[in-house]
Amino acid sequence: MIGIVGGLGPYSGTDLLNKIFDNTLAKTDQEHLDAILLSMPEHVEDRTAYLMGDVAVNPAFAIAKLFLKLEKIGVTVGGIPCNTAHSEKIFQVMQQELQNAKSRINVLNMINETISFIATNYPIIKNVGVLSTTGAYKSKLYTAPLIAQGYKVSVPSWQMQETLIHPAIYHQTYGLKSMSNPVHKTARNNLLSGIQYLKEQGAQVVVLGCTEMPLAITEPEINDLIMVDPTNILARALIRHSSPHKLKPL
Amino acid sequence: MIGIVGGLGPYSGTDLLNKIFDNTLAKTDQEHLDAILLSMPEHVEDRTAYLMGDVAVNPAFAIAKLFLKLEKIGVTVGGIPCNTAHSEKIFQVMQQELQNAKSRINVLNMINETISFIATNYPIIKNVGVLSTTGAYKSKLYTAPLIAQGYKVSVPSWQMQETLIHPAIYHQTYGLKSMSNPVHKTARNNLLSGIQYLKEQGAQVVVLGCTEMPLAITEPEINDLIMVDPTNILARALIRHSSPHKLKPL
Repeated sequence: MIGIVGGLGPYSGTDLLNKIFDNTLAKTDQEHLDAILLSMPEHVEDRTAYLMGDVAVNPAFAIAKLFLKLEKIGVTVGGIPCNTAHSEKIFQVMQQELQNAKSRINVLNMINETISFIATNYPIIKNVGVLSTTGAYKSKLYTAPLIAQGYKVSVPSWQMQETLIHPAIYHQTYGLKSMSNPVHKTARNNLLSGIQYLKEQGAQVVVLGCTEMPLAITEPEINDLIMVDPTNILARALIRHSSPHKLKPL
Repeated sequence: MIGIVGGLGPYSGTDLLNKIFDNTLAKTDQEHLDAILLSMPEHVEDRTAYLMGDVAVNPAFAIAKLFLKLEKIGVTVGGIPCNTAHSEKIFQVMQQELQNAKSRINVLNMINETISFIATNYPIIKNVGVLSTTGAYKSKLYTAPLIAQGYKVSVPSWQMQETLIHPAIYHQTYGLKSMSNPVHKTARNNLLSGIQYLKEQGAQVVVLGCTEMPLAITEPEINDLIMVDPTNILARALIRHSSPHKLKPL
């Protein structure tokens, strides 16, 4: 069974589950896969706040506990719909916690899945644009592995990151964590400015590297630039690992 | 903790969870409520097929088992995002199963919540229109309790039910259970014809009495007729029963 540790944020959890349904070959309710979404945000510290040193407790411990809870009711393969939670300082500690508890759950790595998706599906691409939270930006979450694989990586300037991209997620009035149904137009416009900037830097695709971003940017392409949605890629990877024959062709 | 037995259909489960988020007073991830969605559709027989005598096993047993699973990991208040599952022949058997297992989980009744919502919020209304699956239509799921409370109830003609409304949910090509993201325009048009018919019958509000319908009809009003969304009402009731101070005012 597929298990999702959601709540990071809440709407990213349901977005991942919907994308699992979207990518499943099914004509009736009964043909859909078993899946469980645990949304317990209260005890999971904000990932960016931890990476920036603003909170002391690593959210890795809470995430590992939630996976152990899911494993008890039958989950074998898991996903975390939060890019920033995949920063080494969080993801590796979570993996270690699961190992210490002798867990056999296979938590897929959304970042690795996304990079491998780009390499497979867009083999001629050299320059990858990335939008993310400031936590992921500073920890080079996508940048480091992309560069290691020979890509040129385009990211917003630091000023743009601070004044447009991070607020699109975290601003208390218009940010996607406060308001994503419906999305505030300022959040979307900030992200569109970021996409335009990455295009000017030579990016050939843009990774929407925070799970709130695909809630605001739902188009497959913007200004002829391909949008890469890690939530959708993780959804497909979860199906492939649990029931490959149910995976809808791209 | 709020628990949802989803998969009936899958997208109705995430729709309910999203509506819980929508109706929660929260500006950060951490302020959202704990909730769990268990989507295990494979073993839950189709509710309408059972009521029509096309399958022998009552889905009540599978639904009760899933609630017992949820209770084990801390769920105290539950919801089922499927109107038809609230037919007496299913809901009462499920309640009995939970009682036999000495469960203390409080499964809210979406039908009762919806009727009480109409009585409270639209006190002058006399004529309630209802769209539903054929299972709910034949078992008078909304009709019987509404009439018992003194309402006049408008429903589609039998021919319209068979040729337009039921297929909007179950048709293998355009029905909402086969295709709800995006919704097929035939499914939506069928439902719009039903709404128009109910208006001509004198309905003052229309209950979208199948949890797939609000996926296709998202407007609060159509042709000056108020759309009543039981999924949203159930979401609010779940918040009210678990954390009333977190319920967003209407």
